[in-house]
Amino acid sequence: MTKFYADCQARIAADLISGTWPMVVVYSLSKGPARPGDLRRKIGGISQKVLTETLRRLEHNGIVERRRYAEAPPRVEYSLTEAGRDLLVPIEALGDWAAKHASTVLDAQESA
Amino acid sequence: MTKFYADCQARIAADLISGTWPMVVVYSLSKGPARPGDLRRKIGGISQKVLTETLRRLEHNGIVERRRYAEAPPRVEYSLTEAGRDLLVPIEALGDWAAKHASTVLDAQESA
Repeated sequence: MTKFYADCQARIAADLISGTWPMVVVYSLSKGPARPGDLRRKIGGISQKVLTETLRRLEHNGIVERRRYAEAPPRVEYSLTEAGRDLLVPIEALGDWAAKHASTVLDAQESA
Repeated sequence: MTKFYADCQARIAADLISGTWPMVVVYSLSKGPARPGDLRRKIGGISQKVLTETLRRLEHNGIVERRRYAEAPPRVEYSLTEAGRDLLVPIEALGDWAAKHASTVLDAQESA
């Protein structure tokens, strides 16, 4: 009986995209670099605090990078790293799954 | 500026697979039905309590189904629904991502 999963790489990935916002923020950068203000307008329902924390966590994990432009006022832009761009594959696969099965889940929840 | 994500289907999917265990439990059923005891041996580091809760939540969401065999002692088996089997696609894509980028994440965390 193979014993796996407890402490393997998938745990790193699973922890990384846990919760709604990390995946949503990564996806919202799929079209290219964006400023925090752009992201806030693009992502309905996210507070400034949660956006800032999520971006910081994604940066800490090497998924996004932050570029600061020495302008007045200073401009900050976030963009996906290579690891971030590759993360779009499972995120988009999950989006496809959700498009097909979200109603299945809702029905199951109601009939439970 | 498209406003999206806040309350769309992807949130259902993201919430569903949040945390390590739901994905790990779904993946551990990818080879076919299994009893809770089999799953516990297969998945290192999961407690009986967490496994039971995870299976119940996945059942509630229509991802797994539970079959009870009227034997002495009674036998219970869990298996993936169609939605559960389709969820293997993003989960396996995430596993591929982790295999390629887990070290990138660990390096970023250390150098942060």
